[in-house]
Amino acid sequence: MVALLACDWGTTNLRAWALDPDGAVLARRDFPLGVARLEPGEAARRFVEEVRPALGAEDAPVILCGMVGSNLGWTLAPYVDCPASLGDLAAGLVTVAAGVRIVPGVRSAGFNGRGDVMRGEETQLFGWLAGDASRATGRKLVCQPGTHAKWMRVDDGRLTDFVTAMTGELFAVLSAHSVLRSDAAVTDMAAFDEGVAAAGDGGALAARLFTARARVVGKGAPAESTASYLSGLLIGADVAATPGLLAADAAEGVVLLGDAPLCGLYARALGAHGAPCERFDGEAAAIAGLVALHSWET
Amino acid sequence: MVALLACDWGTTNLRAWALDPDGAVLARRDFPLGVARLEPGEAARRFVEEVRPALGAEDAPVILCGMVGSNLGWTLAPYVDCPASLGDLAAGLVTVAAGVRIVPGVRSAGFNGRGDVMRGEETQLFGWLAGDASRATGRKLVCQPGTHAKWMRVDDGRLTDFVTAMTGELFAVLSAHSVLRSDAAVTDMAAFDEGVAAAGDGGALAARLFTARARVVGKGAPAESTASYLSGLLIGADVAATPGLLAADAAEGVVLLGDAPLCGLYARALGAHGAPCERFDGEAAAIAGLVALHSWET
Repeated sequence: MVALLACDWGTTNLRAWALDPDGAVLARRDFPLGVARLEPGEAARRFVEEVRPALGAEDAPVILCGMVGSNLGWTLAPYVDCPASLGDLAAGLVTVAAGVRIVPGVRSAGFNGRGDVMRGEETQLFGWLAGDASRATGRKLVCQPGTHAKWMRVDDGRLTDFVTAMTGELFAVLSAHSVLRSDAAVTDMAAFDEGVAAAGDGGALAARLFTARARVVGKGAPAESTASYLSGLLIGADVAATPGLLAADAAEGVVLLGDAPLCGLYARALGAHGAPCERFDGEAAAIAGLVALHSWET
Repeated sequence: MVALLACDWGTTNLRAWALDPDGAVLARRDFPLGVARLEPGEAARRFVEEVRPALGAEDAPVILCGMVGSNLGWTLAPYVDCPASLGDLAAGLVTVAAGVRIVPGVRSAGFNGRGDVMRGEETQLFGWLAGDASRATGRKLVCQPGTHAKWMRVDDGRLTDFVTAMTGELFAVLSAHSVLRSDAAVTDMAAFDEGVAAAGDGGALAARLFTARARVVGKGAPAESTASYLSGLLIGADVAATPGLLAADAAEGVVLLGDAPLCGLYARALGAHGAPCERFDGEAAAIAGLVALHSWET
């Protein structure tokens, strides 16, 4: 019996997990129903007609996180401002239909007062925090790598500040559309390490990026190593420079939440800076966060 | 009578000027014959059949600069290494047919030993230097804004070092293909200035870029101001950070060579940093450089 239908409903895809009363996964399905692919007003109908039956969860309570709470989604779930606790997020849950609730996003002042926003990553963060009592105290620097990498400052279990770096999106658009284009996979670890070294302190990124071209046309490096070099350069610049915007330093230690391969690349770049890190699976954290929010007693 | 057919033959286009014996422009034409659009081995034939007759220059001597000297072009004109003088470039001219010569590109060690390269910008630089005797002495910091912006260090009339920043290409690919996409023109100077301020010292660019999104979705800034803000952010980061890679500082003064509108944006960003600059037309500099190289007596 499905006790909870938990979903991470993002821009491109919807991932659903049918959970038993202990939070164990009974079934898992991805749907091409990301909010950018939906017509306005369509989310509720598609969810009832397609997602619920596919998971055998026609009547189960539902909790949704991600862009489904944006103005492109089902219903706007207003941002909770930093500093934010698990209880603050639970208090901000928006009920959009009987037994269906959406997790709010979180907003920070941003490093320069221009604001920063997240929808979905907060759920992973609090899922990770809920996983061990020792995580609820002290100061942490947490990174969720990805298209829009999130760097988060956590103090005694509260998300106090965060910034977003477009690291993954820069890699994607430069690999697809620029003079650095390549469809090679990131597998050449020597080139990756060379890119991390070329990133230096992360400053002057537009110039450092051109070294990915110059090393090929001016120094004879193989063109098929460009993707790995570019990945090292962008991730190296991210780990070297972004924590400083939070008055943090990766050398104090970083918690990485995300897919194993991408966290592996971040760990490698952090290692080159002598920065220790711990890695945790992002999907497990998302499920744990959705369960923790659903179970919160207000 | 055409005394010289001078061409800047780049990746996308070929621009040709028919010049009289005093270097004055008799005719000017653009051709969609950039080297990226040519089949291998096709350059010579297309030049003779299309470019020469269109300019009434079937028999005039010819000088060509730009990517035509790369391995995608007509014939490889090997790079001249920094430090490079006008005489070094003239000595490196490659004759590819009777009366047809190609200007070599220039290679630098790059700020990190990975090398840097240019083809075409050196001709503009030496054209500008040739324009006034006072420019041949002392230390200059010269910037040619564009898709691949070149920052050049000149000492006593020699190009001693340079770095390339992919500033224009980042603007193009982010405006066309990322979450920051926009087809608005860069006309909102308040948003541009806000972007320059957000660029700060140019560090952590991937995170600063996301402020272009967050200011809209988190702070209500109008989406149509994104292109101007993004332009300010990228140009602001370029002027703040790239000169440092040459152990230079824009505050010492910058010579801008290029199109007037783009040089205007760079001048505005430099002004926000209190950095003085002088602006010169890039096309006039290219013509002057081609004439100076053609006229050099070895």
